[in-house]
Amino acid sequence: MDKHFLIRRELVNARLVKLAAEASAPHVLRAPLEKAITSPGKRVRGVLTMTVGEALGARGDKLLDAAAAFELIHASSLILDDLPSMDDAELRRGEPTLHRAFGEDLAILAAVALLNQSYTLVAASHAALKPRRWPLAAVIDRVVRAVGWDGTIAGEAVDLHCEAETLDFHTLEYIHSRKTGALFVASAAVGAMLAGASDAMLGSVEAYAKNLGLAFQITDDILDATSSPDVLGKDVGKDEGKLTFVRLAGVDGARQLNRELIDTSIRAIAPLGSAAEPLRALATMLRDRTS
Amino acid sequence: MDKHFLIRRELVNARLVKLAAEASAPHVLRAPLEKAITSPGKRVRGVLTMTVGEALGARGDKLLDAAAAFELIHASSLILDDLPSMDDAELRRGEPTLHRAFGEDLAILAAVALLNQSYTLVAASHAALKPRRWPLAAVIDRVVRAVGWDGTIAGEAVDLHCEAETLDFHTLEYIHSRKTGALFVASAAVGAMLAGASDAMLGSVEAYAKNLGLAFQITDDILDATSSPDVLGKDVGKDEGKLTFVRLAGVDGARQLNRELIDTSIRAIAPLGSAAEPLRALATMLRDRTS
Repeated sequence: MDKHFLIRRELVNARLVKLAAEASAPHVLRAPLEKAITSPGKRVRGVLTMTVGEALGARGDKLLDAAAAFELIHASSLILDDLPSMDDAELRRGEPTLHRAFGEDLAILAAVALLNQSYTLVAASHAALKPRRWPLAAVIDRVVRAVGWDGTIAGEAVDLHCEAETLDFHTLEYIHSRKTGALFVASAAVGAMLAGASDAMLGSVEAYAKNLGLAFQITDDILDATSSPDVLGKDVGKDEGKLTFVRLAGVDGARQLNRELIDTSIRAIAPLGSAAEPLRALATMLRDRTS
Repeated sequence: MDKHFLIRRELVNARLVKLAAEASAPHVLRAPLEKAITSPGKRVRGVLTMTVGEALGARGDKLLDAAAAFELIHASSLILDDLPSMDDAELRRGEPTLHRAFGEDLAILAAVALLNQSYTLVAASHAALKPRRWPLAAVIDRVVRAVGWDGTIAGEAVDLHCEAETLDFHTLEYIHSRKTGALFVASAAVGAMLAGASDAMLGSVEAYAKNLGLAFQITDDILDATSSPDVLGKDVGKDEGKLTFVRLAGVDGARQLNRELIDTSIRAIAPLGSAAEPLRALATMLRDRTS
């Protein structure tokens, strides 16, 4: 992984640790919240917010709260996805899932708490950067659209309730553009808005992140089909009954699709000129990841 | 119930019906969302937002989105409270609870969707009223504080994990000031902020709503101990194993406490002068409610 990514990931991690330490939660919620907030992760979404925002001229330290917000939203969605009534997963990031460690009730409450907290964090970055073009209401709307009933929640609901046998590429794209794509797009879009991006810049960044998110999901599918749990730190082969890009196109076909999406992603930010360089590097790094 | 209350409740209901109709959710989420948003309720929190905001000079129609937001947050918390891993309730408002009707997964996703949507609605009322004293970030923070890890979520977590035998009045007050009180206070506080209230006015309104919320919860405890499910439309006697105000002080003691809290509530808004009249009427109405 390149240095740009690692430095920002450490900054996001440090912000998350501080956030967990400062949470004024009752005793019974402290351990589940701390584990939910600080358990290891790639922090791709948070780094995406920072990379986009910095590329468009915002100061990294002022983007940190918003970056942490997207990691909280992501952590929240993983907790919910893992629940017995959803994917019923036992392992996540190499450790017992939150409901296995602390019970379903505290896992659900922790997930909802993280989601709420993310709105305060987005508002804090907005107050620090004060982008004249984008009032806070527009930024909040952008987040809600990503995680609301036509965003990640829609993707998860359709994923859980569609019949694998009748699934086609269109439905799979619907699911993943929402389950993974929507939050990628919002992470990047909010970074751009906080940096005061123009509509055209925002459009470029959103197209970049949409393709990047889909490619990221396809890489996950490929890794699920070809890796062991030791490597991934989560249950593998969970997708067996499900239609995935790998099942639809084979491993080679999925790899090909992945490369095409990354190429499309990089083309989308060409109008940004030299500012696009760190975004190109991030896309290339994600294309080549092995875990 | 008085006319002031009924008119505003109808306005909130109409806004919720419109919201459910406009939700751009996938097919599988539509029925659970519609039921979650539009199933009958007292709408006390939404009416509280409107009554406070109007009393302090804001236009009712511009407060409606924020009022609907607090009803969505409340509906969301009821769905979560009723889950098998929490109170495991079968009936709510006279009908099967959401997870009994649609499954746990869709119930949880619907609850999270309502919570997210509420932030957009609060932002919409803020954009309509543009209170100079209170930027949107302050209003969002106020909502997050109420529903976050030191708010309703903390109250619910402690309620689920404390030992009834060792509970005292202090812990019971901790639980209910968060489980019920926090959202009452935020509903009123946001109404006041949207109307451009001064710090002193906001303080009065918050003290009013804090005592009102606790009184409201005590009335619920009394009704749970003395009513039948036909009257209440939800499981009764659910509190039997739990420490409630009724168990702590007896029915007569709880009634006495209820009256004292309502009196304290009304005294808190005396500094508002004649603007306090509709708030006094609301408190009196809630004191005398029988369902």
